Amino acid sequence: MKGFASDNNSGVSPEILEAIEGANIQHTIGYGEDMYTAEAICHFRHLFGTDVDVYFVFNGTGANVLSIQSVCQSFHSVLCAETAHINVDECGAPEKITGSKIIAIPTSDGKLTPDLIKPFVHGFGFEHHSQPKLISISQTTEMGTVYSNTEIHILATFAHENKMLLHIDGARIANAVVSNQTTIKEMLTDSKVDIVSFGGTKNGMMFGEAVVFLNKNLSENTKYFRKQETQLYSKMRFIGSQYIAYFRNDLWLNNAKKANLMAQKLNESISNIEKIIITQKVQANAIFAILPHHIIKPLQAEFFFYIWNETTNEVRFMTSFDTTDEDIVRFTHHLKVLMQIL
Amino acid sequence: MKGFASDNNSGVSPEILEAIEGANIQHTIGYGEDMYTAEAICHFRHLFGTDVDVYFVFNGTGANVLSIQSVCQSFHSVLCAETAHINVDECGAPEKITGSKIIAIPTSDGKLTPDLIKPFVHGFGFEHHSQPKLISISQTTEMGTVYSNTEIHILATFAHENKMLLHIDGARIANAVVSNQTTIKEMLTDSKVDIVSFGGTKNGMMFGEAVVFLNKNLSENTKYFRKQETQLYSKMRFIGSQYIAYFRNDLWLNNAKKANLMAQKLNESISNIEKIIITQKVQANAIFAILPHHIIKPLQAEFFFYIWNETTNEVRFMTSFDTTDEDIVRFTHHLKVLMQIL
Amino acid sequence: MKGFASDNNSGVSPEILEAIEGANIQHTIGYGEDMYTAEAICHFRHLFGTDVDVYFVFNGTGANVLSIQSVCQSFHSVLCAETAHINVDECGAPEKITGSKIIAIPTSDGKLTPDLIKPFVHGFGFEHHSQPKLISISQTTEMGTVYSNTEIHILATFAHENKMLLHIDGARIANAVVSNQTTIKEMLTDSKVDIVSFGGTKNGMMFGEAVVFLNKNLSENTKYFRKQETQLYSKMRFIGSQYIAYFRNDLWLNNAKKANLMAQKLNESISNIEKIIITQKVQANAIFAILPHHIIKPLQAEFFFYIWNETTNEVRFMTSFDTTDEDIVRFTHHLKVLMQIL
Amino acid sequence: MKGFASDNNSGVSPEILEAIEGANIQHTIGYGEDMYTAEAICHFRHLFGTDVDVYFVFNGTGANVLSIQSVCQSFHSVLCAETAHINVDECGAPEKITGSKIIAIPTSDGKLTPDLIKPFVHGFGFEHHSQPKLISISQTTEMGTVYSNTEIHILATFAHENKMLLHIDGARIANAVVSNQTTIKEMLTDSKVDIVSFGGTKNGMMFGEAVVFLNKNLSENTKYFRKQETQLYSKMRFIGSQYIAYFRNDLWLNNAKKANLMAQKLNESISNIEKIIITQKVQANAIFAILPHHIIKPLQAEFFFYIWNETTNEVRFMTSFDTTDEDIVRFTHHLKVLMQIL
Repeated sequence: MKGFASDNNSGVSPEILEAIEGANIQHTIGYGEDMYTAEAICHFRHLFGTDVDVYFVFNGTGANVLSIQSVCQSFHSVLCAETAHINVDECGAPEKITGSKIIAIPTSDGKLTPDLIKPFVHGFGFEHHSQPKLISISQTTEMGTVYSNTEIHILATFAHENKMLLHIDGARIANAVVSNQTTIKEMLTDSKVDIVSFGGTKNGMMFGEAVVFLNKNLSENTKYFRKQETQLYSKMRFIGSQYIAYFRNDLWLNNAKKANLMAQKLNESISNIEKIIITQKVQANAIFAILPHHIIKPLQAEFFFYIWNETTNEVRFMTSFDTTDEDIVRFTHHLKVLMQIL
Repeated sequence: MKGFASDNNSGVSPEILEAIEGANIQHTIGYGEDMYTAEAICHFRHLFGTDVDVYFVFNGTGANVLSIQSVCQSFHSVLCAETAHINVDECGAPEKITGSKIIAIPTSDGKLTPDLIKPFVHGFGFEHHSQPKLISISQTTEMGTVYSNTEIHILATFAHENKMLLHIDGARIANAVVSNQTTIKEMLTDSKVDIVSFGGTKNGMMFGEAVVFLNKNLSENTKYFRKQETQLYSKMRFIGSQYIAYFRNDLWLNNAKKANLMAQKLNESISNIEKIIITQKVQANAIFAILPHHIIKPLQAEFFFYIWNETTNEVRFMTSFDTTDEDIVRFTHHLKVLMQIL
Repeated sequence: MKGFASDNNSGVSPEILEAIEGANIQHTIGYGEDMYTAEAICHFRHLFGTDVDVYFVFNGTGANVLSIQSVCQSFHSVLCAETAHINVDECGAPEKITGSKIIAIPTSDGKLTPDLIKPFVHGFGFEHHSQPKLISISQTTEMGTVYSNTEIHILATFAHENKMLLHIDGARIANAVVSNQTTIKEMLTDSKVDIVSFGGTKNGMMFGEAVVFLNKNLSENTKYFRKQETQLYSKMRFIGSQYIAYFRNDLWLNNAKKANLMAQKLNESISNIEKIIITQKVQANAIFAILPHHIIKPLQAEFFFYIWNETTNEVRFMTSFDTTDEDIVRFTHHLKVLMQIL
Repeated sequence: MKGFASDNNSGVSPEILEAIEGANIQHTIGYGEDMYTAEAICHFRHLFGTDVDVYFVFNGTGANVLSIQSVCQSFHSVLCAETAHINVDECGAPEKITGSKIIAIPTSDGKLTPDLIKPFVHGFGFEHHSQPKLISISQTTEMGTVYSNTEIHILATFAHENKMLLHIDGARIANAVVSNQTTIKEMLTDSKVDIVSFGGTKNGMMFGEAVVFLNKNLSENTKYFRKQETQLYSKMRFIGSQYIAYFRNDLWLNNAKKANLMAQKLNESISNIEKIIITQKVQANAIFAILPHHIIKPLQAEFFFYIWNETTNEVRFMTSFDTTDEDIVRFTHHLKVLMQIL
């Protein structure tokens, strides 16, 4: 059943599958010493426009935890939006594995600002308090919103002025690049971001995420932490080869464009319906909407999606690179039938 | 360059790749709620002949850590051979993630016995000592040796008599089944094993290992631990589909047979050479041999393999499901040339 | 310099010192197997009116961490007020040592209610979320307020209805008993509290806190966790003997009465002064007040106290069992001089 | 009942108690900012003859864990004798709290040498292995033996040549100084030791140990780790004042001299008895002896001591600063009665 539950319910782009098959020849040295990994890292360096350090891991939680672990001691704290994946959706993995404290800051739209963060940035040198070390933002956010390049730059500057670092949870980084009509170099490198969890699985890859360090001093111990966190893949060529295909011919951008476009179409299709309230800006591939309570269950029976807030009847629709116009039409039709406006 | 470095330097069986492609249709619910995962688990239940609980993870270290975490509190200890992967090759992941103590017991051949374990089994109820809870053995062992079914049964009985549990690190479990000319049911279920890290990646799969609980009481919290240890895969169907293909038509056994046979052939081919000493029984797909010092480096230049012990010039050769007769012939020829006996 | 910085700046009651000296005779078995420890535990059982399990530790952070560790797995979460000691003042010890997630809930007065907690109590069985397990409240709170017995009972009921537990951080539990004009049995046992960090160091003891389990099933592994968390004291008699003296002749209540009374006197003495705003109810031995900015530094030069909020000029005054009427008079005088109203 | 169970069964020297009483005046700032702590640290600097960094903690396990945590990341390993307190008697606290791997090396007498350590020092830079970082030795050892100053210097040199550090578990450091007829400066500073857990509780103090860093670069984060490990004491003056008294008039050396002398006397008194075998050199305040099986239980009924090895009937006798000639005489008499040689 196709639906709008999550962009990770989608499959894998054919180009990715071909790349995996292509890498399945002969013996290759394991654990990242292979040519596919090396070539993929070259692509990252080109993309970021600087000599980044790249560590491949299996999944997004692995990438986020490795990012935190690489730069935080257990007595440090990580400041993030209350809605952040690291705060809500990782079952406490960051705390368990790194020992660091997660400080969750309420926001209206999933986006942090220096003003929101400031009240939590104090106590430096005071041993009774966890020491603020890392600001982590999600781009795109879990609320479907997108930081402008300038907003990221402002956060990075704020972080560095306070001797902290800026991490991006980029599980949907491609959708943000497309949304901002920008490049990785402009959005991340020029904005002085320090570390990026660079996702691909939600945008057409099979598995494999990258932790990208823009400052190589930060990744001194990352290889040990990756192994110790059970995120070192033996047959690493099967991640490297995916990323090579992901970047070739702008597959990653084209996939994200489709997903974002489908969100716009879905938004246009339902936002004018009376009694439906779109609660967040639709800037990437997520739509948050309040629906009449009685249609939610029957609608889910046909098109799976998640309820975001049981109390307010807010739901989340995620579009994907393989969402089709027909999906939108069928969904809207069904919705209208249930609302008895057709 | 093909060689004998590790069975994870090999690629992926074509049947596995086909299965992955076959699963790449439409949307599928993530995180293991899909039909592929369900079907794969059925295969495991059939194989074990009992209603096992199965949790898929990305890799072997992930499987071992999840096994330990599921049954050990931080004040427990895990007893294993000094050569065990969990002791030597996981960069301390078990200690870091579970907090438990690893007690490493010297052995001559990588195999534990009750007599070797007994001196470490005491102090129950004494809060100053880590409490012995889990015996972990590798089948096949890291020394290429294989426990007989009886030996496993004896260890399980010993564990249970002391209120402990028995875990199998089965990264090469298929090679052991073939070596013992037995079945999973006989070797593990009938022997009263408690938990198995059931590997596939070293035997023709792309990625994905299974943690199999023979006693469902032990896995009560495993799903949380899997997520928290960053080992929950979103697009789980791509592990499930691999296992379905792995078990279909005995692919797993046939792959292991080839690997084991090639080890026998390599053994026959080099064991009679003067100045080469085979140091361990060749029971699966590993050969440990002492070579003349001067030939090791030039031999590695042509066929990669690892030095096991720099002091004694002991090396390890691993064969794989895709090792060919020709590989053996070329290797032996080259070896003899270097030893000037050709 | 005497001041109002913290009740742990005070010394030790003479009766406590005498008890320590009295226990310094001959050899005594270590680690809590001694008669002093046994007798002290008897006192706790009498006080709670039930067969509680008691574990002595060195300090309050140790007590809180041991409480959490005893009942939480790493995938659990602990719900507390944002101002809670476990959230703010333990440098992330709970997260580091237990791996559990701390969820900090904003409050106006340091007190949690079911309504404040409810939005965070969901996702049971959903492996992506930390599982809510423990509600931890401070009695007295870090804001100097006190839960009524009924409020505690309501929270315990709410916890149990949601299969959670209720923990009390009782670093200042004596001040709360006095404030509520109640008994430990009524306030904690009858209210169905599960675990209490029972403090003494802030109320005239030298060191040593107790973790009290009202349900013995919860402390099954506590002795191992205490040792593993480095909180097992070898010469335990020197904690036990203190608690015996602490409870004898109601020393603990008398000390707390003095401290609370002094807070009332200080409150009366300054609350009517124009431009001084008392921001929290004065229910125990803390006063929170907003002072004119320009007098804070000069006042601190004479009587040490902590600034609570730099932005709002809110400060905290803590009274202690050894605060005297003269201290209050001198402080008020000095304050008025600085405010030029004398 | 007086016995030879452990030197921590003894009480507290009167001078220590007096010092504690003397410090119980007025208010004093907490957490180590007081004058007693400052003065005690001065004494340590004088003793070590260099500008050491000193952190007071509650107990020995706390000191050892803080030592390890200060210099080891979770991917590091700690090399120690199999008999080391950190390996056997801390319930896995080092692994749980630091995440590091403990590598236990068998010895005949509790003492490590470079030759014993070498086989475990390899794999630097290889991410699959825990990285060797710290050698930890106990002085005196858990077997009652003592490293000469030269032996310590050789181990420190070996550690530094391999980019590792040397830690001393000095729970009984005073007994070693006396045994070696040396000074702290000669034994530790001149031998290039890096970190010392400097004990006092087993030698007449009430509680409180010190972690001493001879290289201040190593303690950069120690204050945060101490707090996070629940080892920061609020009323720190009561540790500082003890150490001031401990060093005044050589109380610490005099106490250790008495304990060591009593061990010599006990040794002389029983070592010539037929069927009693002294198994380790008696260099400090411990005696290891094999006794006839049938006398062990009745002897324990009168004088408590621990059985070291149930299989070989080896027992441990610890003398203490308060052991008397009469204790030795009475014990020997009783022993002989039981052996029917009186």
